Formats: sequence, C-alpha cells, structure tokens
Amino acid sequence: MTDLKNCTVSVFGLGLLGGSLAWKLSRDGAVKSVAGWSRNPQTVRRAHETGIIGRPCATAEECAALGDILILAVPIRFMEATSLKIRPAAGSGVRAVFDLASTKTEVGRKLAPLWGPCYAGFHPMAGKERGGLENADPALFQGAVCAVVPFENTGEEALSLAEELAGALGGRPLRTGAEEHDAAAACISHFPVLVAAALALLAGEEMERHPLVPLLAAGGFRDTTRVAGGLPELGADMASTNGEQIRRLAGKFRTILDTLLAVSPEELEVLLAKAARCRETVLAGKDSGSGKRG
Amino acid sequence: MTDLKNCTVSVFGLGLLGGSLAWKLSRDGAVKSVAGWSRNPQTVRRAHETGIIGRPCATAEECAALGDILILAVPIRFMEATSLKIRPAAGSGVRAVFDLASTKTEVGRKLAPLWGPCYAGFHPMAGKERGGLENADPALFQGAVCAVVPFENTGEEALSLAEELAGALGGRPLRTGAEEHDAAAACISHFPVLVAAALALLAGEEMERHPLVPLLAAGGFRDTTRVAGGLPELGADMASTNGEQIRRLAGKFRTILDTLLAVSPEELEVLLAKAARCRETVLAGKDSGSGKRG
Repeated sequence: MTDLKNCTVSVFGLGLLGGSLAWKLSRDGAVKSVAGWSRNPQTVRRAHETGIIGRPCATAEECAALGDILILAVPIRFMEATSLKIRPAAGSGVRAVFDLASTKTEVGRKLAPLWGPCYAGFHPMAGKERGGLENADPALFQGAVCAVVPFENTGEEALSLAEELAGALGGRPLRTGAEEHDAAAACISHFPVLVAAALALLAGEEMERHPLVPLLAAGGFRDTTRVAGGLPELGADMASTNGEQIRRLAGKFRTILDTLLAVSPEELEVLLAKAARCRETVLAGKDSGSGKRG
Repeated sequence: MTDLKNCTVSVFGLGLLGGSLAWKLSRDGAVKSVAGWSRNPQTVRRAHETGIIGRPCATAEECAALGDILILAVPIRFMEATSLKIRPAAGSGVRAVFDLASTKTEVGRKLAPLWGPCYAGFHPMAGKERGGLENADPALFQGAVCAVVPFENTGEEALSLAEELAGALGGRPLRTGAEEHDAAAACISHFPVLVAAALALLAGEEMERHPLVPLLAAGGFRDTTRVAGGLPELGADMASTNGEQIRRLAGKFRTILDTLLAVSPEELEVLLAKAARCRETVLAGKDSGSGKRG
C-alpha cells in the first residue's frame, strides 16, 4: 500500500533540494516515475535532458495531476500559493504531500488545512554553498537526517511514505513536532545564517579602510561565513517564518558573546575549551541519535 | 648572501605551524638543514623519526646555537620567554628571527628590542581544525599569503629571507605593518573565533532543552563553528594580544546584527544579497591582490 516503488513523485521547484531529490529517485529507479515542474521552463528542459526528471511538465497543474506524491520544493514564500494553485488539479488519488521548507510551524499552519491527512512536513538537513539545479547532486542527502513533521490531521500513510522517502534519499527519517523542529533549526541553521551574514557585512565595511582584509582572508573566514553565501530569498524566508525563535536565540547569543569579550584571558581559555566541547557534542549527536524522536 | 639554501633553520615549537613549516623545508631540501625543539621531548623524537626535522634538539639553547634562521612557533604567551632563553645561545651568526604569531603588534613590541635588525614578524595565513604535530602537513602553506612584518629596526636581510621563506613554503609574501595586520586579522580571523565559540556555546545550552539540536546539526553548523574547534590557548592569546581591535569590531558587529534582526523581510533579503557579495569580494581579494603592500 505505501510502497514508494509504485508511486509517481511530482516535484514542484527544481532548485538544489528539488533537483537533488528528483535526481536521486530517478537515478536509483526508487519510484515509478519522477515528474517535475519549475517556474522557469528552461530549468524543466535541462532537468529532463539530464535525466533528473522523467516527465517534464509545462504547468504546475499538469505536474500535480501526474503525482501520487507531491513534493513542494519551491521557496517558502510560494508554498501556500503553489498549494492553492495545484490542489484542484491534484485530484483524490494523491497519497502524500510534503513541503521541503526549512521552517515548519508557519508553513504547516497554512498548508495542513489545505491538504488534510496526506500532508506532512519533510526537511532533509543538507545544503550547499550554492543553490540551483546546476548544483544539484543525487548524493546530497546521503547520511542526512530528514525531519518528518506530522500536523494535527496528518495520516499514517503520509508519515510512512515520508519515512520511506527519507530512506530512498540515503537519509535517516526523524519524526518531530514543528515547533521543536523550528527551535532546533533556528539554533543550528537559521540564526547562524544571520551571524555569518553580519560577519561578511562587517568584513565588507572593514576592507574599505583596511585593504589587507581580503588579502589575509583564508579558510577560516571562508568556512565561518559559508552559509552567508546562500540564496538571500531563502535566508529572508527563514527569518520571516522563524523570527520568534531567532530573536530568542539572538538575545542569548549577545549575552554569551559579551561574556567572551569581558572575561580575563584565563577565563576565556576555559570558555573556548567548553565551546570546542559543545561543538563536538552537537556534531557527534547526529550520528549517535536514534532514528525517531517524538 | 641571503640564500635560504645555505641556512640551517631552527624551529622552536613543533605544533601544526612549526611542524608543517619544518616538514615542507625538510622534504623539499629547501634549506641546509632543519633543527627542531619542542617542550615535549616525545614530539621532538616523533618529528625526527618521521623526517619532519633533521636535527632533534634536547634543549631550546642547543636548537638556537645551530640556526642561521630561528623560527619561533611557540604559543604567543611563550614568545618573549623563549626569546630571552635562547638569545644568549644564538650567538652573532643568526641572520634572521621570525615569530609565527597570529597577532603582531604586541608580540613585536616585546621581541623587536630583544633581537634587533634580524627580527621580523612572519604570519602564514593557514590553519586547520586541529592543531599539533599529528596534523602537520607540508602542503599547509600552499598558496597561503604570508604576512611579513617589519619593525622599526628590522634590516633588509631579514625581510629578504622572510620573503624567500614564504616562497619556499609555497606561499606568497605580503609586507605589511603590524597594526594594519592586526586590524585585518581581527576582522577575518580573531573576532570570528569568538563569534563561532559563542554559537557553539549557544548550541550547547540549547541542546539541554531541545534534544533535536544535535540531530539536526549538519554541514552549515560544522562550518560556521569550525574555528571554535581550535586550541583554546591560541584563541585566548589572540584575544588578549589583539583585544582592542576585537572590541572595536564587536561593536560594529552588534550594530549590523541588530539591523538584520530588525528589518523587514524585503530589506533583509537585500542585506543578505549584499552580505553574499561582500563575502565573494573578500574571498576573491586574496587571489587578485599584489604580492606586496605597505
């Protein structure tokens, strides 16, 4: 009944995430077929020519009519409008609808009433410095945790398909509530984007007075600011749909940074050692965590 | 006269930087011989056994007596004490003394009067997540900018040897003043270490309440906090010897971050696009910059 193999997957939006997901499923023959639509017809053509999708669609409605599973990989700000547009075409055969948005509470509040039991949030924790189909990679989700987010009316079939999908992508499903997802994602992803952007803007200001700045910049600066190199629309959407969590974290961050700036060298050394341990613990947790969590 | 080939290079401190430098020079036969000393005799033995150094030294004084060029690769806090200890043994044959410290103004203020014309600052802009001899790599400095920092009394021979040394390491010499170096390094390296540490500490706090934090942490968090994984002593030394610049930048950073948190989604998108451009400009600057700069 919930065998992914028998499903046609329709992907709306063929950027980094949508493109990588479609490519992985197509390449592995993990599903019956992969249909794809993008606002940009050239993107659809390229995805078809390169075998990333098997069924190119000229309209979102056409794509919706083909799919047993609909995957919304459009920017967060278009999730609701895209849903409203495709719902009439989707028909009653649709077994699951997932959004790939990196924030869940607000997106789910809008999408859950529209789609009912077949809808769940799905968020594969993977990314790259650069977005777009040209950077899509079927191996992008290898080993990645895929958050599976049920809403009040979400049915078991949708959740089961989401967990199968996570496995088909090479990732690990992790069931979680939307608010818990957003609190954690703000901490390890959304707020760090703003911090990285602030560091990049600071360096941009400084290099006006200090021409040495770009000449000394090396791997450390590159890594610390990497997430500031992503799509600005994505960052703005994350901030606008997860603002409460981000502002909560910003307050705590300010206090911690002020402490680091105020303490003695000896105390700073202790705190830096603690920071390195925290980082290790956070990064180790992904591999040691169980596959499911409430 | 200033031919590196005819010089014995004595390296004090065989951690990531000292070890990598010694290894590169030994492996390429770029100098007559490489002598090495570390506080830890086991490190000296290991460096000798693996061919990283050719002349293992039991004492810093023995190492100093062998060298035409002395390279201080000890932690910043030991630069002055190591200099005082080895100067009597170094004799008059020493042609150059370089410190590899990542801050220059305060280190130079202490070392320049001790060593006179043969002393210059030398800072190869390269690093790794983990320090220590076990992470040394002869390719560490490939393509790296090496800041060459003259002080009031620095002679031309020392500067010329420093520039030769940068080339022998596979890097590019860049002559700069100590204060200019420290202002730029604070912006692209020292202050970002504190920011990364604050993010890691924040995640450590958050995971107590949100067990999902380590499960969702992915490449973005890993990269943004990478420089917080370094040696805490190094971070504390950088902060204590470049505190003025760091506090200046912290003030500007706070203002920028507050702006990012306060603006509308549309304005945030514009600022994030600007941040991505700043980052590109800063990172591109290293390759386009000239080899020397006042």
